[in-house]
Amino acid sequence: MGKKKVRIGMVGYKFMGKAHSLAYRNLPFFFDLDAEPVMQAIAGRDEAGVKAAAEKWGWASYETDWRRLLERDDIDAIDIGTPNHMHAEIAIAAAQAGKHVICEKPLSMNVKESLQMLDAVRHAGVVHMIGHIYRFAPAIQYAKKLIRNGELGQIYHVRAVYLQDWIMDPNFPLVWRLRKDVAGSGAHGDLAAHIIDLARFLVGEIKEVTGMMETFIKKRPIGEMTGGLGAAMTSNQFGEVDVDDAVAFLARFEDGAMGTFEATRFAKGNRNGNRIEINGSKGSIRWDLENMNNLQVYLDSDEPGMQGFRTINCTESEHPYASAYWPAGHIIGYEHTFINMMSEFIKGIAEGRSPAPNFEDGARNQCVLEAVERSSASRQWVNIQAEI
Amino acid sequence: MGKKKVRIGMVGYKFMGKAHSLAYRNLPFFFDLDAEPVMQAIAGRDEAGVKAAAEKWGWASYETDWRRLLERDDIDAIDIGTPNHMHAEIAIAAAQAGKHVICEKPLSMNVKESLQMLDAVRHAGVVHMIGHIYRFAPAIQYAKKLIRNGELGQIYHVRAVYLQDWIMDPNFPLVWRLRKDVAGSGAHGDLAAHIIDLARFLVGEIKEVTGMMETFIKKRPIGEMTGGLGAAMTSNQFGEVDVDDAVAFLARFEDGAMGTFEATRFAKGNRNGNRIEINGSKGSIRWDLENMNNLQVYLDSDEPGMQGFRTINCTESEHPYASAYWPAGHIIGYEHTFINMMSEFIKGIAEGRSPAPNFEDGARNQCVLEAVERSSASRQWVNIQAEI
Amino acid sequence: MGKKKVRIGMVGYKFMGKAHSLAYRNLPFFFDLDAEPVMQAIAGRDEAGVKAAAEKWGWASYETDWRRLLERDDIDAIDIGTPNHMHAEIAIAAAQAGKHVICEKPLSMNVKESLQMLDAVRHAGVVHMIGHIYRFAPAIQYAKKLIRNGELGQIYHVRAVYLQDWIMDPNFPLVWRLRKDVAGSGAHGDLAAHIIDLARFLVGEIKEVTGMMETFIKKRPIGEMTGGLGAAMTSNQFGEVDVDDAVAFLARFEDGAMGTFEATRFAKGNRNGNRIEINGSKGSIRWDLENMNNLQVYLDSDEPGMQGFRTINCTESEHPYASAYWPAGHIIGYEHTFINMMSEFIKGIAEGRSPAPNFEDGARNQCVLEAVERSSASRQWVNIQAEI
Amino acid sequence: MGKKKVRIGMVGYKFMGKAHSLAYRNLPFFFDLDAEPVMQAIAGRDEAGVKAAAEKWGWASYETDWRRLLERDDIDAIDIGTPNHMHAEIAIAAAQAGKHVICEKPLSMNVKESLQMLDAVRHAGVVHMIGHIYRFAPAIQYAKKLIRNGELGQIYHVRAVYLQDWIMDPNFPLVWRLRKDVAGSGAHGDLAAHIIDLARFLVGEIKEVTGMMETFIKKRPIGEMTGGLGAAMTSNQFGEVDVDDAVAFLARFEDGAMGTFEATRFAKGNRNGNRIEINGSKGSIRWDLENMNNLQVYLDSDEPGMQGFRTINCTESEHPYASAYWPAGHIIGYEHTFINMMSEFIKGIAEGRSPAPNFEDGARNQCVLEAVERSSASRQWVNIQAEI
Repeated sequence: MGKKKVRIGMVGYKFMGKAHSLAYRNLPFFFDLDAEPVMQAIAGRDEAGVKAAAEKWGWASYETDWRRLLERDDIDAIDIGTPNHMHAEIAIAAAQAGKHVICEKPLSMNVKESLQMLDAVRHAGVVHMIGHIYRFAPAIQYAKKLIRNGELGQIYHVRAVYLQDWIMDPNFPLVWRLRKDVAGSGAHGDLAAHIIDLARFLVGEIKEVTGMMETFIKKRPIGEMTGGLGAAMTSNQFGEVDVDDAVAFLARFEDGAMGTFEATRFAKGNRNGNRIEINGSKGSIRWDLENMNNLQVYLDSDEPGMQGFRTINCTESEHPYASAYWPAGHIIGYEHTFINMMSEFIKGIAEGRSPAPNFEDGARNQCVLEAVERSSASRQWVNIQAEI
Repeated sequence: MGKKKVRIGMVGYKFMGKAHSLAYRNLPFFFDLDAEPVMQAIAGRDEAGVKAAAEKWGWASYETDWRRLLERDDIDAIDIGTPNHMHAEIAIAAAQAGKHVICEKPLSMNVKESLQMLDAVRHAGVVHMIGHIYRFAPAIQYAKKLIRNGELGQIYHVRAVYLQDWIMDPNFPLVWRLRKDVAGSGAHGDLAAHIIDLARFLVGEIKEVTGMMETFIKKRPIGEMTGGLGAAMTSNQFGEVDVDDAVAFLARFEDGAMGTFEATRFAKGNRNGNRIEINGSKGSIRWDLENMNNLQVYLDSDEPGMQGFRTINCTESEHPYASAYWPAGHIIGYEHTFINMMSEFIKGIAEGRSPAPNFEDGARNQCVLEAVERSSASRQWVNIQAEI
Repeated sequence: MGKKKVRIGMVGYKFMGKAHSLAYRNLPFFFDLDAEPVMQAIAGRDEAGVKAAAEKWGWASYETDWRRLLERDDIDAIDIGTPNHMHAEIAIAAAQAGKHVICEKPLSMNVKESLQMLDAVRHAGVVHMIGHIYRFAPAIQYAKKLIRNGELGQIYHVRAVYLQDWIMDPNFPLVWRLRKDVAGSGAHGDLAAHIIDLARFLVGEIKEVTGMMETFIKKRPIGEMTGGLGAAMTSNQFGEVDVDDAVAFLARFEDGAMGTFEATRFAKGNRNGNRIEINGSKGSIRWDLENMNNLQVYLDSDEPGMQGFRTINCTESEHPYASAYWPAGHIIGYEHTFINMMSEFIKGIAEGRSPAPNFEDGARNQCVLEAVERSSASRQWVNIQAEI
Repeated sequence: MGKKKVRIGMVGYKFMGKAHSLAYRNLPFFFDLDAEPVMQAIAGRDEAGVKAAAEKWGWASYETDWRRLLERDDIDAIDIGTPNHMHAEIAIAAAQAGKHVICEKPLSMNVKESLQMLDAVRHAGVVHMIGHIYRFAPAIQYAKKLIRNGELGQIYHVRAVYLQDWIMDPNFPLVWRLRKDVAGSGAHGDLAAHIIDLARFLVGEIKEVTGMMETFIKKRPIGEMTGGLGAAMTSNQFGEVDVDDAVAFLARFEDGAMGTFEATRFAKGNRNGNRIEINGSKGSIRWDLENMNNLQVYLDSDEPGMQGFRTINCTESEHPYASAYWPAGHIIGYEHTFINMMSEFIKGIAEGRSPAPNFEDGARNQCVLEAVERSSASRQWVNIQAEI
C-alpha cells in the first residue's frame, strides 16, 4: 500500500521480454519488499507485436520507440531485453536520462562498450544490474554460501560447461543470434557468458585464458524464427555464419584454481546443459541447470565410510529465496531465477545500491569473453586486463 | 479483450490458497484461452489474514464468511481450499447457488459425502473439478498419451508411493491435518489420494484392495502451525493423534494389473517423494515428483543392445502444456501444475463441461480410500463398489 | 601352505554352478583365511556337461550321481546348486554323511522340508549356510552396520522390490523355474526370497503378511533353455504354468515397522532390479542391485540446509569386504558377493560354527514365503509361525 | 586340453600385478579360446614379497631379477607392471629375447623411448599390447561400435575427465607416482593417458593441443606406501614434488572435433571419476567408470517427444564380452576389463598379430602426452607429430 513503486519500462518483447515480464508480475506475490515494480510500459518496433505482448503480459502501456521510454516521467527503470548490439546505446541513454537499468547478458558487443556503459551508470549514479539469472538459483546461492564460509577449503578446480543443441540442423536459419553484427558472438556471448559469471561468482576472478572457437556449419539459409526458438522461417538463400558454434577455454583463476570451460550449441541431446563442478581442498559441489533445484555436495569432514556426494534439494527454508515459494520438496523452475533476480533489483533501487551482478560484473565478464576471442586468434594465453 | 470472464471466489488462504491464487494470476500470462479468470474475492474467517492475502495475491475483495461468496452475483465459480471437513458443505451450497466448483482433494470425509457432492453438481448442472494437480505435470500427461496409444501394451504392474517426512518429530503439534474430525484421515487422504488418482488416470479403475494403516506417534502437543508447514506453535498439553501416519495397500485393477501403494509422512529424507512406476507388456515408465519434468520410458521395441530407460525432459513442444512456458530444457516447477489445471477448469466453464478430474473422479477416489480403511479394519480384501 | 583345506563337492553345473565355482576359485586370491577351499568334485547327471564344466571351471574330478559325493572321504562340504525340489534330499543326506552344507535359496519346497533340513544339520552338527548372496554386497553389510549402531533410529518402513523381465515373451518356454514340481514357486521363491532375506537381515523378523500372487501368462510352449537364460528351445506343445509370475505382499515386522514387498518377472526394462529402501526415525537408506556398489544414506543429524541422500561408493577400507579387492572407486560386480559369502562359509567350517544366513534363516524365510502363499489363497492376513 | 599354452612371466607384484594375475587366473574360466595363459613366473626384487604374491595369486614360480624371465625357455610372454621408468628397458630386452610383451601404461617416460620400444617389438616380430584397460569395458566397446557404424554421425565434441582425490592430504608421502624420475609425470601419465586412449579409440587421432599443468602441493614427506594405496609410511623429511597434480588441455582432432581433457588427483570426492562424453551430429554418448556397466546414449532418430538419453546396462548378449559373464543385469566390475584385455592378448599371440591397443597406440598416446607437456611450457598450441 504505502510501498515505494518502481515503474519499469522494458525494451524487447521476445523470450527475455516474456521472462522479465513474468518476474515483475510475480514478484509481489512471492516477496514482501519495501518497494514493488509497476509494469508501466513495454517498447518494441512492431506495434502489433508489442501491443499484444503488453496485453498478454500485463503492461500498462506500450511504445514503438524505446527512446520514448526515456522521455517519460512515469518510468523509473529501464529493462533491456533486446539483441546484444543495442545494449550499449540504450543503457547509456537510459543512464543519462537518470533511469535505473537492468540489462540482459552479455552486457555488450565488446569490452570498450562495456566500459562506456559502466562509466555511464556510475556517472549518472543510477542503479544497474545485468541478467545473469543462474546466480539466483537457490542451489547456486547456497553453494556460494558454502564456499564463502570455507566449507570447500581452497579451490583447486572449476569445471563448467553449457551445452545446447538447438541449431544443429544445417537448415536452421541464420537468425540474429548467429549474426556477429547483432549478437557479437555465438555460443560464446550467449552461453559461455553464463558459466563465466557462475565461476566468477562462486570462485573469483580469472587471471588468464587460452581458448578455441569453432563454427561447424558455415552457411545457413537466410531467415528468422517465428514464434519461439523452435519454429523457423527459412529461405533458399544462404548466408555466412560469422559467429562461433562452440568455444572451449582453459583458465587460471587469481587464487590459483584451474578452470575448464566449454559452451556449445552442438551437443546433441543437451537442451540446456549448464553444469558446473567445483573441487576444493575440503569438499566439492556439482550443479546442473536441467535439475536446478538440486545441489550435490561432498564434504571431507564426513567420517570415513560415510563419505559421498549428498543430493540436497534446495527448497528448504535454509536455502536462499526458497522460503518465498513452496514447502520443502516442491520445486521451482527456470522462471523463478528471474523473480529472485528482480527482487534484488527492486531492493537495490529502494536502497540506492547496485546489487551484484551489475555492470561491473558485466564488464569483467566481457573482459574474459574478449580475452578468449583474442586467445583463439593468437593461439596463446591471454591475460585478463580488467581496468575496472 | 472480448474474452469471457470467469469470476472466481476462493475459500481458504493458506497453502492451497496461495497455489490457486498464483494459478489464476498467471493463467492469462501463459495461456491464450477463450475465457479468463478474474480474481474477484477470497474468503476466510480471520479478517486480518484474509485481507493480507487478498492484497498480496491480487484478489479484488475479500469476505470473512464463505457464504457471502455464494450470495454475490459477481462470482461465477467457487474454489474450495479449506480443510477437508468443510468441502462437502461448501461445494453443495455452491452448486445449489449455481456456481461452478473446483475443490481440493480429497473430495470429502467419506464416500457418502462424495456422492452427495456429485449429486449436487450434477443436479445443478455446474462445472466441477477436483484438485488432483499431479495429473497436470507434462510428464504425466505424456505418460497417459503413451499408455492410451498402447505404447506400453497390457499393463501388468503399478507401483506408487508418496513419501514425506514433515511430522516425524514427536514434538510436531497436533495440527488440523492430524485430526480426524477436520482432515478425515492422515497420509491416506492427503497423499494416498494423489497416487490413487495418478493410477486411475494412467491405468484405470481399481477393483479391490487390501491395506494396512499405522499411527507411529500416538500423542502430540496440542497446537497449530504458524507461518507455513515448517513453523509450529506447540503447548505442554498433549492430544491423541487419531489419523494414520502411514498407509500401504495392495490392489487389483479391473484390467488385471497388480498395484502396490504406500503413503507415509514417516519416510525420513523424502520431502515430497511422489513416485510412480508402471510396467506393461511392451514398455515401462517411471516418474518422480521431485524431478517432475522428467519421464523415464523403456520401450521393448528398441533394438536389442540399445534397450534402456530414456530420461525424457518433458519441456518440448510435443509434451502437453509445455509450449505455454519456456524453450526446451527450461524446467517448470510445482506451481505450474496448478496453472495447467486451471486452464482446464476455465476452458471447461467456457465450454460447459466438467474436465477430468472432476467430482466423479473424486468420488471414485474416495471409494478406494474408504475401501482401504475398511480393509485395514477387517484385515481382508475389500471390493470397490463405486455406485457412481 | 599349512592352511586347512576344505574339500568341496558341488552338485549342479548351470548358472549357480558357475557362480559358486568362480567363488571357490577366487577366494584364496582375495582373502587370506586360515582355511581354503579345494575344488574337489562336481556332480551332474549329464556326463558330457559335467565333465566340461569340471574342466572349464577347475574341478579336480566329477561325478554323475551326487550320492557319490557323499560317499567320498575326500570331500568335506557339499554345495547344492540344483533345482529347488532336490535341495532337501541332498542336504539331509549330506548332513547325515557328516558333510558341511551350503545350499542355494530358497532352502526348500515348503516349511516342512525346511524344518527337516534344519533338524538334520543340527543333529549332525555340521556347518550350514544358505546362498542369500545379496547380504554380502559391501553396501548391504555397511547398511546393516548403520542400522545395528542405531544410525537410522527406530525403523518405520521397509520397501523392497525385485523386478525382472526375462519371461515376458509368451513364447518363452516352460523351463524348470516355471514348474511347481521342480521350483516350488515362481518369482516368489526365486526373487521374493531374496528381498525377504535382505529385510530380515537389515530390520528383523516379520510378524504377519497379506499378499497376492498372479500368473499373467498361463500357458507356455514346453521346452528348456539351452545355453543360458537367454537361449531357449521351444516346441509346439503347450503346458500350464503353475507358478506365480508376480507376487506382492504387505508385512508387519515384529518391531512395528511396515513393509511392502513385490517380486515379479513381468517388469519390462528391469533386468535385475533388486531394490530396497528403509526409513527410520533418524535416517534412511536406499540400495539397488543394478548399481550395487553404491549405498544411499540420509542422516537426520546433518545440519539443516545440508540434508540430502549421500551416494556412498562402498569400495573403501571402511566398507565390509571391500579391502579384499581394489582401491576405492574401483567397483566390484555380481560375482564378488559369492566370494564374500564363501569366505564366511570357509571361515565357519574352520571355526566350527554356521555363519548367517544359515538353514535357520532359510527356514524362517520359507515360513514367510509360505505365509504369503496361504494369505494369497485365503485373502487374509497370516501370522508367521516360525517354530524354529 | 589340446589348447596352446601361453606361458607368462610377469614383472611387478603390486596393484597392477594383482590385477593382471587375476586376469590370467580367470581368463579360462570365462572365455573358451584356442589358447590359454599359464601363470609361469612372477618377478620382483623383494624375495619375501614376490614369493608371497606368487603363492597367493597362483604363479608357479618366482624370480628376484626380471632378466631371469627373459632367459627362461619356458616363458613365452612378458607382462610389465613395474613403475614407468623401467618399461622401456624391460620391453626392449623382452622383445630382443623373442618374448611377446604386454606393458602397463603409460608406455614409457617419453616419445623417444616409446619409439624405441615400438621399433624393438616390430623388429623382433613379437606380439605387443599396452594396458589401456578401459577400452575393454563392454560399454566402451559398444560405444565404439555405435560410432563406427555412424550412429552418432560426425563427431563435434569430446569431453573427458579423470578425477581422483587420493593425494590431497599434504601429509600424503612422496611415493613413486609423485617422482618424475620414476613415474615420468603425475596425473598426466597416470590418468590423462587413459582418457587420451579412450578418445583416440572412440573418435580418432588428435591433431593439436594446448594445455596447462599444475602442482598444488609442492613439498611432501619422504616415504612410501605400505599395503595399498591407502596406508602410507611418512617421515619428517620433506622432498619436492616434481610431477603434476593436475593437467587440463584443449584438443583439435584430425576430423575436426573439439576436445577438452582434464586429469587430476585433486578433485575431492571423486575416487575414480573417469568420465567421457561424445557429441555427434546424430547422437551422443556418456560414460562414467564409477558406473562402468552403463552407457548413456542419445539418438536424434528417436521421434520428437521421445528423445532423451537412454541408460543402457551393457550386460546383454549384444554387448561385447558380456556374454562371457553373467545374465543381463548382473554387473561386472573393474577387474573384468583386465580379463577382457587379456583375452585379446592371448588371442593375438595365438593368431600372431598385435591387437589394439598396442605399442603403436602407446607411442601415439605418448606423443599427445608430450605435446601437452611442451604446450604447458611454451603456452602455445603444439602439433602432434607422430612419426610412427
